[in-house]
Amino acid sequence: MSTSLTKGEKTRDKIIRKAAAVFNQRGYSGTSISELMEETGLEKGGIYRHFESKEELAVAAFDYAWSEIEKRRRAMLDEIPTPLGKLHGMIDGFAVKPSAVPGGCALMNTAIVADDGNPALRAHAREALRKWLDSLEALVRQGIEKGEIALGVSPAAIASTIIATLEGALMMSRLSNDRSPLDNARKHLHRLLDDIGRKVR
Amino acid sequence: MSTSLTKGEKTRDKIIRKAAAVFNQRGYSGTSISELMEETGLEKGGIYRHFESKEELAVAAFDYAWSEIEKRRRAMLDEIPTPLGKLHGMIDGFAVKPSAVPGGCALMNTAIVADDGNPALRAHAREALRKWLDSLEALVRQGIEKGEIALGVSPAAIASTIIATLEGALMMSRLSNDRSPLDNARKHLHRLLDDIGRKVR
Repeated sequence: MSTSLTKGEKTRDKIIRKAAAVFNQRGYSGTSISELMEETGLEKGGIYRHFESKEELAVAAFDYAWSEIEKRRRAMLDEIPTPLGKLHGMIDGFAVKPSAVPGGCALMNTAIVADDGNPALRAHAREALRKWLDSLEALVRQGIEKGEIALGVSPAAIASTIIATLEGALMMSRLSNDRSPLDNARKHLHRLLDDIGRKVR
Repeated sequence: MSTSLTKGEKTRDKIIRKAAAVFNQRGYSGTSISELMEETGLEKGGIYRHFESKEELAVAAFDYAWSEIEKRRRAMLDEIPTPLGKLHGMIDGFAVKPSAVPGGCALMNTAIVADDGNPALRAHAREALRKWLDSLEALVRQGIEKGEIALGVSPAAIASTIIATLEGALMMSRLSNDRSPLDNARKHLHRLLDDIGRKVR
């Protein structure tokens, strides 16, 4: 946070940060205004001075959570020189590192309820998924162009499979309080990348 | 439903069936008693005559939803003679057929909120996942014993990867309103089974 923020901007940022953790742990419908008041230490009016509604705050909180996840991911991937290496690194980062915001993957937590009365929130989650898929597809394509990954591999299918396997495994690991689903997913996906890489050589 | 049920038992069953669809679509926290009253056409007292609390009803509704899913799955798999064939069939059933209860996979929908104030519900979801994993592990083991699947394959790892990939893909397909993540998952998992099968021959 820059120190040049006004007091109002700082309060707004604080509300978003605190709300992101609450929404991500308790879900959008499961989060009450009184819990948000308790977490932020603000009165109802203090929160609604900055956000028109719980819906609007939830969207801002999701965007914040996702931007934190993306920031971490980008910083980690910038250290890795090759597209195939970045794909391996993304898998390890997801499977091994704790989530940037408490409560697990903000995307899955937001995506899962079919009808939560907040279509704007779902639209932001949909857009986040689209961008994540695009970034993995781009890495697979770059890997093909650089000759690291076999021709004929479908970037869209690989990107989709990586995200599905990681997200599903995270759900299972969180539910069972057991790391093995994430460990299995990680090993399986590294092997998948080895396979599509190996065909080149 | 058997016709030998008493009127009270019939009402209880109806409440569970209706509640299962509401909880699965709106989430446990997102479902209010007034919605359950509207769906069942009963007064609050009429619901609470059969269930001590919303928590207890949610557990009964989850168990009902999961038993419907298992019943369908078992009926489908009974038609397939070989363990490896059953694994292929389970993947197709999950990826292609609509869910037994509206709102997608009851397991994922129940699993996803980290802190919904209903630990009994989470325990039932955890047990459902454990049993699903066990049934897939048993099929992989039977496939190894019958010589359909290569020795050295880990039944636990294969079972975990299949469920993770399907559940994650379902989340993505539901969020993006696009079948391709589930289609990609299905193809990927069939190929995985072909690989662990092919090593035998």
